[in-house]
Amino acid sequence: MRERITSSQNKRVKQWRALTTKKGRKATQTYLLEGWHLVQEAIKARLPLTAIMGTEEQLTAHEGAFPAVPIYELTDSIAQTIGDTSTPQGIFATASMPNDDHVDPKQASGIWLFLDQVQDPGNIGTMVRTADAAGLTGVVLGRGSVSRFLPKVLRSMQGSQFHIQLVEGDLHDWITAFTERDLPVYGTNLDPQAKDYRDVPSLSQGAIVMGNEGNGMAPDLQRMTTQNLYIPIKGQAESLNVAIAAGIVMFRLAE
Amino acid sequence: MRERITSSQNKRVKQWRALTTKKGRKATQTYLLEGWHLVQEAIKARLPLTAIMGTEEQLTAHEGAFPAVPIYELTDSIAQTIGDTSTPQGIFATASMPNDDHVDPKQASGIWLFLDQVQDPGNIGTMVRTADAAGLTGVVLGRGSVSRFLPKVLRSMQGSQFHIQLVEGDLHDWITAFTERDLPVYGTNLDPQAKDYRDVPSLSQGAIVMGNEGNGMAPDLQRMTTQNLYIPIKGQAESLNVAIAAGIVMFRLAE
Repeated sequence: MRERITSSQNKRVKQWRALTTKKGRKATQTYLLEGWHLVQEAIKARLPLTAIMGTEEQLTAHEGAFPAVPIYELTDSIAQTIGDTSTPQGIFATASMPNDDHVDPKQASGIWLFLDQVQDPGNIGTMVRTADAAGLTGVVLGRGSVSRFLPKVLRSMQGSQFHIQLVEGDLHDWITAFTERDLPVYGTNLDPQAKDYRDVPSLSQGAIVMGNEGNGMAPDLQRMTTQNLYIPIKGQAESLNVAIAAGIVMFRLAE
Repeated sequence: MRERITSSQNKRVKQWRALTTKKGRKATQTYLLEGWHLVQEAIKARLPLTAIMGTEEQLTAHEGAFPAVPIYELTDSIAQTIGDTSTPQGIFATASMPNDDHVDPKQASGIWLFLDQVQDPGNIGTMVRTADAAGLTGVVLGRGSVSRFLPKVLRSMQGSQFHIQLVEGDLHDWITAFTERDLPVYGTNLDPQAKDYRDVPSLSQGAIVMGNEGNGMAPDLQRMTTQNLYIPIKGQAESLNVAIAAGIVMFRLAE
């Protein structure tokens, strides 16, 4: 059942290595899941996996949980060259890129997190994980945010991408679709009319927008929100990390 | 005034490179600050710098702000080899390791964050930055937490280490010193008697304890707290990142 791969020049091995790049993901229309936690979450979520590959030890430890997909056994030295962690666990899967993850913003319900041009993969992944924990319905990655298929984003999400809706979209469309239905959209940048985040009502439906690490939300999006919020800083720190700010606001407004 | 260094085998260059290791920091009793933001914050805080070094371009851009310490001009290629960022800005400083940063736990006032065996440098740095923003007095790194002099910890603190007190200590001593003075110490692990973090009074003085990323607080410390708290998780995420949890609790209880 298992195909054993021993040559580091094997064509599949080269394809798997290339999945850390956008070009490589596009070529095969798949992306890479690294480590048993993530592979297991993907299996539980019935994600369309296209292959599972790992060292003999890892495959043997987990094979009872595998779905009916091709399994490839790798030598330890080949396993070291896949993915982008310095010490990989030795188990991976590939999954089909969703060819249609479209959610109609005019139909979306619940509470959503909108991310405008967030750049750091760890920040994006942590915000998706936190949105899941706070009970949000989904996260929209606006244009200019890094790809949700980057290995580091996938790892920091810790499987939360399988629990909530995660879509790419134009935030102008999303904000308009919400405000036209009278669902509040809270931006999180300072402006002269911004309010303390503790002074607005909790959300039952609506959205919270977080902006770029250095520059915050784009000015044109700031003008489209229902209300912009700020978190009062008491000490001498200049700002909060964006994922920390998102956690504080989500746990306050989605409670 | 500036000494120009062109050999990558120069003895000082080797010492500066070694500052990413504990052994190297111990040998010279100094640690490394990378990037202008951090060097500038250190100058503002009148930290005992022992040298400033950088490329000609960086030194010329910032020399008006330098205190009276030896200045070393580095070639671009030497500057690339110092510190642990892949694309260094090209300006650094060395500072004396504090030989006595002792704060007596029995005298400490205000609100403190205690960190028990936190391992990730980015998490520690982000929590120090967030503690500063939330107006806390200081952070105690308990035994088993990673060093506050690691370059990645220093960078993630973003200068907040110069705004609040940051000490290493035995958390048994700190918790005892607070509870004996009837100052509340809130642990943040689940136990059968844990309370929702929203159901306890805000702190005017006291402490919040965060534990290890995987294992939480040590059981013996959990038994010493006034009360342990939990953050209710609504979705399917198994847990929150420790720095996110710390941010939510600090901004709720120190407000």
